[in-house]
Amino acid sequence: MAGTDRTRAEAAAAAGGGMGPVIILVEPQLGENIGMAARAMLNCGLGALRLVRPRDDWPNRHAIAAASGADGIIHAAQVFETTEAAIADLKAVYATTARPRDMTTDVVTPGAAARRMKDDAASGLRSGVLFGKEAKGLTNDDVALADAVLTVPLNPAFTSLNLAQAVFTIGYEWYQLEDDTPAVEQAIPKETRPANKDELLGLFEHLERELDDSGFFHVREKKPIMVRNIRNVLQRARFTEQEVRTFRGIVTSLSQKRKR
Amino acid sequence: MAGTDRTRAEAAAAAGGGMGPVIILVEPQLGENIGMAARAMLNCGLGALRLVRPRDDWPNRHAIAAASGADGIIHAAQVFETTEAAIADLKAVYATTARPRDMTTDVVTPGAAARRMKDDAASGLRSGVLFGKEAKGLTNDDVALADAVLTVPLNPAFTSLNLAQAVFTIGYEWYQLEDDTPAVEQAIPKETRPANKDELLGLFEHLERELDDSGFFHVREKKPIMVRNIRNVLQRARFTEQEVRTFRGIVTSLSQKRKR
Repeated sequence: MAGTDRTRAEAAAAAGGGMGPVIILVEPQLGENIGMAARAMLNCGLGALRLVRPRDDWPNRHAIAAASGADGIIHAAQVFETTEAAIADLKAVYATTARPRDMTTDVVTPGAAARRMKDDAASGLRSGVLFGKEAKGLTNDDVALADAVLTVPLNPAFTSLNLAQAVFTIGYEWYQLEDDTPAVEQAIPKETRPANKDELLGLFEHLERELDDSGFFHVREKKPIMVRNIRNVLQRARFTEQEVRTFRGIVTSLSQKRKR
Repeated sequence: MAGTDRTRAEAAAAAGGGMGPVIILVEPQLGENIGMAARAMLNCGLGALRLVRPRDDWPNRHAIAAASGADGIIHAAQVFETTEAAIADLKAVYATTARPRDMTTDVVTPGAAARRMKDDAASGLRSGVLFGKEAKGLTNDDVALADAVLTVPLNPAFTSLNLAQAVFTIGYEWYQLEDDTPAVEQAIPKETRPANKDELLGLFEHLERELDDSGFFHVREKKPIMVRNIRNVLQRARFTEQEVRTFRGIVTSLSQKRKR
């Protein structure tokens, strides 16, 4: 799926960065993963990235390369020495981790977290989501700083999710809340429109006339049900006005061949 | 997020592979991307991977390496010469691509596609999802083979999604339909349970007695509202039985210091 425009991308990130959740990577290791997380953020209109003690020097050229198109987010990222400092200005913090065994806390799905963060944003209160280092995850001390644990429901036999994918999951749920794309929509080329019933009936009758003429309905008592079946299947195809014309051309063309 | 068990992972993939959508990669280029797509599939309990004309030899060692943990899916993947052959046994096919400009077709979100595929699966009818080659996407001829176009609603300024992420989005929506994880759930360590109101009131009264004793309520007419505010905030913390005991210990400890 292609389609990127640097300037618009950065504008959108800046806009989305207003009240979208802050993405906080604690002790991230590979620059490439940070870059891919930035791409996932921009896909979902998020702009604010914070890093706590990244392993390598910052800015990191691997992060910039992997972020291609989303490097505005990398350049604007803030670096902190402690998780406490990175979350200081936030109202609510979610820790992405497996369900904890030795802590009493709310465990929320990405969808539920997105709805809570959205409700808080509507009151002007910004939230953040903590992601731990690759493979090891968050420490219990970091989890204890969070208001709730965020766990992505996945195949229990294989819950290992890479960093960019975990970030994308949260961003995706956030973006869906803002998005008004209809679940199902008919795309139609500009130069045409759905056929109306008059045009469709014109096609049906044209086809039935030629079929009558060609002897297709030779068992007369079966004609009504055959007509009904043909109309039924063609109805389901939801013709455009242009396609009705094409099919009338097809009927004419086949009939002329027979008549010759 | 860690947590992988090879045997269980493969068992789950085999099970999920039963009626889950078939993931069809058309002309995939980098083995690493194929491997990461396999991981995304296993995360979501999907098992059936098909490849149409992969650029490199198959099996591909880069794909196997990148799939780590999900290499069972790579080993079971089927390779086809044409998209037509890869979809021949399927009931419905979705083409992941940007909204088409010159074709009349349904455009569905990942959530709507997952629901349709699930409904079809309930009737024993299996679906597949087509993904085009990196950067270039599907050809119009491949899109024309599909029943509907599947477009992930994303930041319009940055819709460029990598292959594994596109596969993950479909799998995630599919998995959510099967999953019964509550949106919000309180995790509590095994050795304790939520405090009941009697225990909580015991803590409140203990605290208020000691505060009375220490002179905290020296403006008597303010005592009722102060008590109410303290009870209100502690109520919100949703104590466990163990935490009530810990806090009674804290009250006792602070009071003893004062009494000495």
